[in-house]
Amino acid sequence: MSFLNGRKRDEHRGKILVVVVAYQAERHVVDTFERIDDAGEVHRLTAGAPAVALHFPWDRVDDLAELRSHAESRGLRIGAVNPNLFQEADYKLGSISNPDPAVRERSVAHLLECVEIATALGSTAQSLWLADGTNYAGQDDLRERRARILACLEQVYAALPPEQELLLEYKPFEPAFYATDVADWGSALLFCEKLGERAAVLVDFGHHLHGTNIEQIVAILAAEGRLGGFHFNSRRYADDDLIVGSVNPFELFLVFVELGTELPRLTIDQAHNVEAKVEAMTLSVVNVQEAFAKALLVDREALAAAQLEGDVLGAHALLLDAYRADVRELCGRARVAAGGAEDPIAALRESDYLERITRERGDAGDVSAGWNA
Amino acid sequence: MSFLNGRKRDEHRGKILVVVVAYQAERHVVDTFERIDDAGEVHRLTAGAPAVALHFPWDRVDDLAELRSHAESRGLRIGAVNPNLFQEADYKLGSISNPDPAVRERSVAHLLECVEIATALGSTAQSLWLADGTNYAGQDDLRERRARILACLEQVYAALPPEQELLLEYKPFEPAFYATDVADWGSALLFCEKLGERAAVLVDFGHHLHGTNIEQIVAILAAEGRLGGFHFNSRRYADDDLIVGSVNPFELFLVFVELGTELPRLTIDQAHNVEAKVEAMTLSVVNVQEAFAKALLVDREALAAAQLEGDVLGAHALLLDAYRADVRELCGRARVAAGGAEDPIAALRESDYLERITRERGDAGDVSAGWNA
Amino acid sequence: MSFLNGRKRDEHRGKILVVVVAYQAERHVVDTFERIDDAGEVHRLTAGAPAVALHFPWDRVDDLAELRSHAESRGLRIGAVNPNLFQEADYKLGSISNPDPAVRERSVAHLLECVEIATALGSTAQSLWLADGTNYAGQDDLRERRARILACLEQVYAALPPEQELLLEYKPFEPAFYATDVADWGSALLFCEKLGERAAVLVDFGHHLHGTNIEQIVAILAAEGRLGGFHFNSRRYADDDLIVGSVNPFELFLVFVELGTELPRLTIDQAHNVEAKVEAMTLSVVNVQEAFAKALLVDREALAAAQLEGDVLGAHALLLDAYRADVRELCGRARVAAGGAEDPIAALRESDYLERITRERGDAGDVSAGWNA
Amino acid sequence: MSFLNGRKRDEHRGKILVVVVAYQAERHVVDTFERIDDAGEVHRLTAGAPAVALHFPWDRVDDLAELRSHAESRGLRIGAVNPNLFQEADYKLGSISNPDPAVRERSVAHLLECVEIATALGSTAQSLWLADGTNYAGQDDLRERRARILACLEQVYAALPPEQELLLEYKPFEPAFYATDVADWGSALLFCEKLGERAAVLVDFGHHLHGTNIEQIVAILAAEGRLGGFHFNSRRYADDDLIVGSVNPFELFLVFVELGTELPRLTIDQAHNVEAKVEAMTLSVVNVQEAFAKALLVDREALAAAQLEGDVLGAHALLLDAYRADVRELCGRARVAAGGAEDPIAALRESDYLERITRERGDAGDVSAGWNA
Repeated sequence: MSFLNGRKRDEHRGKILVVVVAYQAERHVVDTFERIDDAGEVHRLTAGAPAVALHFPWDRVDDLAELRSHAESRGLRIGAVNPNLFQEADYKLGSISNPDPAVRERSVAHLLECVEIATALGSTAQSLWLADGTNYAGQDDLRERRARILACLEQVYAALPPEQELLLEYKPFEPAFYATDVADWGSALLFCEKLGERAAVLVDFGHHLHGTNIEQIVAILAAEGRLGGFHFNSRRYADDDLIVGSVNPFELFLVFVELGTELPRLTIDQAHNVEAKVEAMTLSVVNVQEAFAKALLVDREALAAAQLEGDVLGAHALLLDAYRADVRELCGRARVAAGGAEDPIAALRESDYLERITRERGDAGDVSAGWNA
Repeated sequence: MSFLNGRKRDEHRGKILVVVVAYQAERHVVDTFERIDDAGEVHRLTAGAPAVALHFPWDRVDDLAELRSHAESRGLRIGAVNPNLFQEADYKLGSISNPDPAVRERSVAHLLECVEIATALGSTAQSLWLADGTNYAGQDDLRERRARILACLEQVYAALPPEQELLLEYKPFEPAFYATDVADWGSALLFCEKLGERAAVLVDFGHHLHGTNIEQIVAILAAEGRLGGFHFNSRRYADDDLIVGSVNPFELFLVFVELGTELPRLTIDQAHNVEAKVEAMTLSVVNVQEAFAKALLVDREALAAAQLEGDVLGAHALLLDAYRADVRELCGRARVAAGGAEDPIAALRESDYLERITRERGDAGDVSAGWNA
Repeated sequence: MSFLNGRKRDEHRGKILVVVVAYQAERHVVDTFERIDDAGEVHRLTAGAPAVALHFPWDRVDDLAELRSHAESRGLRIGAVNPNLFQEADYKLGSISNPDPAVRERSVAHLLECVEIATALGSTAQSLWLADGTNYAGQDDLRERRARILACLEQVYAALPPEQELLLEYKPFEPAFYATDVADWGSALLFCEKLGERAAVLVDFGHHLHGTNIEQIVAILAAEGRLGGFHFNSRRYADDDLIVGSVNPFELFLVFVELGTELPRLTIDQAHNVEAKVEAMTLSVVNVQEAFAKALLVDREALAAAQLEGDVLGAHALLLDAYRADVRELCGRARVAAGGAEDPIAALRESDYLERITRERGDAGDVSAGWNA
Repeated sequence: MSFLNGRKRDEHRGKILVVVVAYQAERHVVDTFERIDDAGEVHRLTAGAPAVALHFPWDRVDDLAELRSHAESRGLRIGAVNPNLFQEADYKLGSISNPDPAVRERSVAHLLECVEIATALGSTAQSLWLADGTNYAGQDDLRERRARILACLEQVYAALPPEQELLLEYKPFEPAFYATDVADWGSALLFCEKLGERAAVLVDFGHHLHGTNIEQIVAILAAEGRLGGFHFNSRRYADDDLIVGSVNPFELFLVFVELGTELPRLTIDQAHNVEAKVEAMTLSVVNVQEAFAKALLVDREALAAAQLEGDVLGAHALLLDAYRADVRELCGRARVAAGGAEDPIAALRESDYLERITRERGDAGDVSAGWNA
């Protein structure tokens, strides 16, 4: 179909979907090369996931060129580089917000190293989530912590090569349970404004308090020119990291309606605890493709007219018209035209990929290895 | 005690507490002059509520000078002026965000009128809460609405005399149930940044999603120089507008810990549906005074030292030490020294004020007249 | 199509949809006979809303037989009777939970009157929502309040004729903001268990805290034989009372998946503040019909098999398969076969109904009259 | 002071506080005997934590008699036994709700083993939290899962010796993110009613959705004779497991007001990720003691009178009067009289306990070992 073919011819087409094989559940059992293989399989089936994001130090390898070349051999490029500043005991009271200057220095050193790694891998973005925060009132000075973060980020931003941007993610809670230092989009945006034009906010579906209207945040950040990217997953309670679209597919559609055709960097960031991993990733890409396809079906001119007339239900119905359409066949044809499978889930179940990796990697291959972690 | 006496000598002392007699429940039954009388009685008892906020057109009178003089005769000055852009059917689809330019013009005219009213009353702030928003996805264009709001606010800001500031309040939902146009502090701050230095954000305790750390928002806005004021009340569920401190008094204390001694404009904004109104107001001021007194007891030097050492529980315990103190006697003496009552609630119950207003005003005087509204 | 035709032949078919014209927004401006006319129009268009619920004293008329006959002339029967125990100042501190025995007696008298009204109208259910609760800790004794409620409900239950059942609704908050006396399904169920077999729980979509899994509550209550009925609407924040299916249509589908074909009493309970009322009702019925139709498409045998095998994504995909289908045409044909319109919204917009009632009733006819209330 | 001394003479006094050294953070690094040592130290300092709860298989030892005797040598008895049915991959899709009968059998076998362990340890309660649930709609049949759980619990209940009771805990989410099988108190109570009189509900502070009124749940369960126990901790967002009383100490006080003097089994169930563990436990016991002491100060007769008169603020103020009291000295004297320390935190910091265990156990001894887990 033309709309997806159209996207394919677009030079930004690669942005449609960047698969991050969810790290939380898998970091211990699946190595980086295997995760790239899985991402390649998902892209082969869906024709919609041409990049893979990496995390450091989790994905640290001896030879970055080999890593990049391995990805390219699977038809993938490297998406964002994600520095990890929360895994070690040193960071217990914060990384770049830590009251201890030695910890802040160590944190900045890791961030600067990631800039170099990104350069070596051809990545164009640092994607930073800070786990920093406090658990108890009084534990630390909230303003001092923000001042420390800004000072450290300024060092990193100054070292960014022109082709890289700095994406700053926010999250309301967990692991911090009193005050998270970058807790909401406003808080992240304030840092970006102070840093410069190549700093932008990263929105994660699961990083919001109950009731938050995510598509409105997308609209505001896009209007400000500060929407750096999107992490896809689903939540019902907290940061549940379920398959994108599995809790409220209408909300996913509405996000695409707001995004329009100028898609930012899109990433899948999920944890697969009870379901088969590669199949879950494949379903995730399919869900995203269908939501995007439905958003493209919206009659934008009629919508704008109904809005201006104050025709509340007429305008709402125009969205419903697009949403209620069954776009499975349409997306299937578009995938085939792009070299993917008409029905990626069926194709995966029929293939020997899962059997093969299970055999090669042992039990941990595709089952929900993270459950026992 | 010295700390409250100290505040009293401070020229900013008037800022400690500005009583807004809660409008939602009472607008229909208690007239403006009577509400000022009630506010005067609360100030007489507590020595902590020297101003009264007004709402227009609810508080519209023929003679503004008479209104101002009536307040002064009760020992009060006029606090913020609150324009009302939500009471009429015209505003159903928005006021300054409305797709209809005629409604926007009418809205701006009212806002400009309020600037003149404030000048006449000696008020130094416009306090603006927009009920604008949408109930259904697609109902209106979210970006267009923000652009319309900015354009209208720019007209108002340009007309502000130098002694007035523009306070912009946010609220996540209600009456809008899909997307509220100014839904959170980040959204309000963006408007203020674009308007100019005399635009600041107004924080209302009840206008947050579950889990929001309000004291952190206070800290961020204060650090940015954009904390314009605070609306006191309590919430457990939505915008419940209960007596301040009645749900989580520890949170109220923590807000004062963040505010420090540079208090912004403080206002009580509550609805009294099942309790006696003047008594509720008096208790509210007492709760605020005690929370402020406890915050002043915090050993700030020891706190800063424990924070820098990473002594999590040591720092937390320093807050607890201040919070667990019983400051009733202390505050009672401070009130007496300032001309108020040692125990304002007892003094109110012993006085004939309630009996008198009930007699003069009829049943609607002090009972929860709003319940049946 | 057979599935909806099949339902139509079912003697319980009338239960598919009982339209309550939302009372909150409209009670002041639209009289009972006009609301019945509107419900009749919705049923004429959708062939899916054959009953209308009434509220007393709001819907009090001199001649109940005339009311019943008016409904029948519009092709409707009377659904549940809803006693109202929250509108008057007497009930400020509770109705049947009130510490004052005189208020409890008055409340019980109204409930008993409603039993007689229901008998006169041919209604088979009392649908009771208690606004009772407290706003402040300590305001009343929580256990005493429950004991009072039980004692009063026992009197009402004893007076119920055998064909009537007592439906007890729960709601977590509003108007009570500390503790609502019947706050959740467990609390309602405890009362029903003590009352007898004809007492059952009424579930309202909007009466849940964030995150609550409503379809699971449906499953539990149905398994216990205590699911008395369902109030349809949508919520995003609190008890928003938006058009059913407008926030998360997937959740509406999942509720029907749990309900199966043994539908309980279904009622639309919404407030239309910014949208055209009759159109909103019509859209609501269409949304419900489509969700029900999709639920009927689920391959139950394959689902049970996948569940037993622990095939997480296989089972989930079977629901998705049904949900992603476009059932508009299917439902349109079913409506036509049942005497309704293929596209009820289009038919309404093309008809002169709205123009006629607007002319006859004045401005209040179809616009969102409630906004200004 | 008499109130705590009075409790001490009560035969149920041991119930005041049962310390469970929080398992989540510590299971890997601190062995069972060391945890009992820590609990003994907390009890020595506070005179308020005379029992320790154990988890199996985490606390599995070769010689149960030695374990019991070790606890007794530290002045402790064994509290509830907590079977663990969530740690192994077998339980990924559920334990006693699992569609696979072999997994259910294995689960029941573990539960029966725990009954025997409890008998050997002199414990009088099984405390069961089920992690069972589903992550995706359709993953399993919600009613079947409940039927399986009931059938398994009936086997366990039948094997309980008369001195043991079965406590069933509920939790709304995590690790399950679609539907948790025992998600709320109503759901737990239904199982208990079907099992028998010695089955009761366990309430955990952190296991509630936002807004839930926990003291009301306590009141209802106590009135039904089904309040089996209480897990103390604090939450602000999800199941945060912070120090009890650190988020809203007023709520902790209100729970004790509802509990009255007939205290159920009380347990501390926290995770200490950034703070010193033994100190955190000690502070927790102190917070609980002070909340209990304040609740004992409430003038119950005056409260009942104000409630009956409908004096909303008068009744509320009676709670505030007790809450605002400073009971530190009072509790200090009561602890000393009971053999504990006047200021347990200061006593701990002055003692060599922390230094000694850090030396003996290595770094993992008292620092937040869980952070890196």
